[in-house]
Amino acid sequence: MKIAIDAMGGDFAPMETVLGSIEAVRANQHIEVVLVGDEQQIFDILEANNEAKNPRISVHHASQVIGMDEHPGQALRKKKDASVVVATSLVRDNRCDAVIAPGSTGAAVAAALFGLGRIKGIDRPVIATPMPTVSGITVMLDSGANSNSKPKHLVQGALMGSEYAKLLLGKENPTVGLLNIGEEATKGNDVVLATYPILEGMKTINFKGNIEGRDIPKGAVDVVVCDGFVGNVVLKFAEGLVTGLTQLVKDSIMAGSIFAKIGAMLVKPALKKMAKRLDHTENGGAPLLGVNGVFMIAHGSSKAKEIKTAIEIASDLVERKIIQHIRETMDIEGALKYDYDE
Amino acid sequence: MKIAIDAMGGDFAPMETVLGSIEAVRANQHIEVVLVGDEQQIFDILEANNEAKNPRISVHHASQVIGMDEHPGQALRKKKDASVVVATSLVRDNRCDAVIAPGSTGAAVAAALFGLGRIKGIDRPVIATPMPTVSGITVMLDSGANSNSKPKHLVQGALMGSEYAKLLLGKENPTVGLLNIGEEATKGNDVVLATYPILEGMKTINFKGNIEGRDIPKGAVDVVVCDGFVGNVVLKFAEGLVTGLTQLVKDSIMAGSIFAKIGAMLVKPALKKMAKRLDHTENGGAPLLGVNGVFMIAHGSSKAKEIKTAIEIASDLVERKIIQHIRETMDIEGALKYDYDE
Repeated sequence: MKIAIDAMGGDFAPMETVLGSIEAVRANQHIEVVLVGDEQQIFDILEANNEAKNPRISVHHASQVIGMDEHPGQALRKKKDASVVVATSLVRDNRCDAVIAPGSTGAAVAAALFGLGRIKGIDRPVIATPMPTVSGITVMLDSGANSNSKPKHLVQGALMGSEYAKLLLGKENPTVGLLNIGEEATKGNDVVLATYPILEGMKTINFKGNIEGRDIPKGAVDVVVCDGFVGNVVLKFAEGLVTGLTQLVKDSIMAGSIFAKIGAMLVKPALKKMAKRLDHTENGGAPLLGVNGVFMIAHGSSKAKEIKTAIEIASDLVERKIIQHIRETMDIEGALKYDYDE
Repeated sequence: MKIAIDAMGGDFAPMETVLGSIEAVRANQHIEVVLVGDEQQIFDILEANNEAKNPRISVHHASQVIGMDEHPGQALRKKKDASVVVATSLVRDNRCDAVIAPGSTGAAVAAALFGLGRIKGIDRPVIATPMPTVSGITVMLDSGANSNSKPKHLVQGALMGSEYAKLLLGKENPTVGLLNIGEEATKGNDVVLATYPILEGMKTINFKGNIEGRDIPKGAVDVVVCDGFVGNVVLKFAEGLVTGLTQLVKDSIMAGSIFAKIGAMLVKPALKKMAKRLDHTENGGAPLLGVNGVFMIAHGSSKAKEIKTAIEIASDLVERKIIQHIRETMDIEGALKYDYDE
């Protein structure tokens, strides 16, 4: 199992990407990593951590980096030797099994599309983000790859999300919900209205109908299908709301009596446990589904712990043959000839 | 100041709508209410509360009710004497100053459109929901009236939201943000991409550019402009997340040590204060902006307290001449002839 890491991607590269890769290798005997980026910088960090001679860690030089604020398409055209592009090419050429790409989501999606191509039957790849709920984990997709989804994109997302949930959640027949503004099949905008009957007719997924925003944190379904614009807004809103609420609890307690403050000290361990559950570093990143290869997108603010988790998830997805499962599903659904070329 | 209440609307009608109206009248000497619905049922509740002879409370009979699960358009065509339709007609005929409509949002929007008509320059009315943030209140619109917004609808929403925020928040020049998936003007779906330059060119609003989901709970802007599909999903997601988090905190504490439990008892007053801030009954409801009259949509699960608040907000909006302000803004922007007929 060989994982290529864009070691120059994200806000804390290459330090945190290299440290996370070291942690992953140390914790998993079957994992090898290829660190892609500035050879000297990466080597220095490896040496400082006594890992420069580890046979399961290698370095592949790439002279360029795509920054967070560069236009993805333009950057990709100009920077042929960008670390994310080179890391992706290692998977294309069967020299690695998966890519970890922290940093600019737009650049990562573009690099994956150009480098790996789409699985047959998929028009646009989607980002599948695991979200913590009161009862476990729900996979939300698309959470940002495609912000002008047509019905066929949502349908393809549902099929891929269901395959991903089977592996991630270990469920045989995960439930799938269409994110909407009402439960009835007659509710919603033009895109979801046209999507509903197609999903309802599909044999390979366990479609539970429409769900509303409030059903996501409840964990009402295993897979939430939505447009990338909506998914991205919800994901970032959740992030902001949790941060805001934590602040409000702190403020309320600090403005309270001495008893409230003592109480706060006593509940702290319980609250910490909860925060851990919501902590996105526990989830590591989100796979880009629909391209010919395992491609994990990690948060731009990823630290070593997230990189390590992302590597482990990627390794797991390769072992469980996610790409093959998606290909098979698309073959079946393609053969059923649903009329969703919208 | 005379407010018409659809006394039969919502899950707890007519009991809670009548009780809320009584509370509003008792607390505000200048407010009169007209309770629209089943005369006998309403009268019985008034009598039981010693308010049957209050000269500031009158009853206007309506023989029909539109249920939560009826198709708005069909129900409106069939039920000419529905309480929400009759209440709206009282404002149209200048016999009341505002309407309070709990219950089906779809039916309320349809009744308002048919009964009051649109303000000149407005294509589709929007629901403007006040959301609590860490720093105060942000107005989000549209939160569910229009789920296929075009750029002109978002622009009209921005103009109306800005006028509403002036009155609600008491700010002279409220900030307006366009909800998007990135801060740059080049980010987003086709609709927001086309909306951005129009908002940027407007003289009557204080446009701050794109905001992301995480900026809403921060209170980054006073007015958040978005499509009704996105706004509705975010609003309901917030509701579900707050409920879910409260449950997680409870569970964490209950699974904890005896110290955690004692601690929880001590922090309870502080947490309650916080919950109050997030409590949607404190906000009362959301005005439907863009029709020729003050029209408040209250939650289907409204209890007396929310109805009272909704009546007080409606009275305030009438006094502060919200309709006139919107008309004036639309006249100015119409005269500027922005090219946003998309």
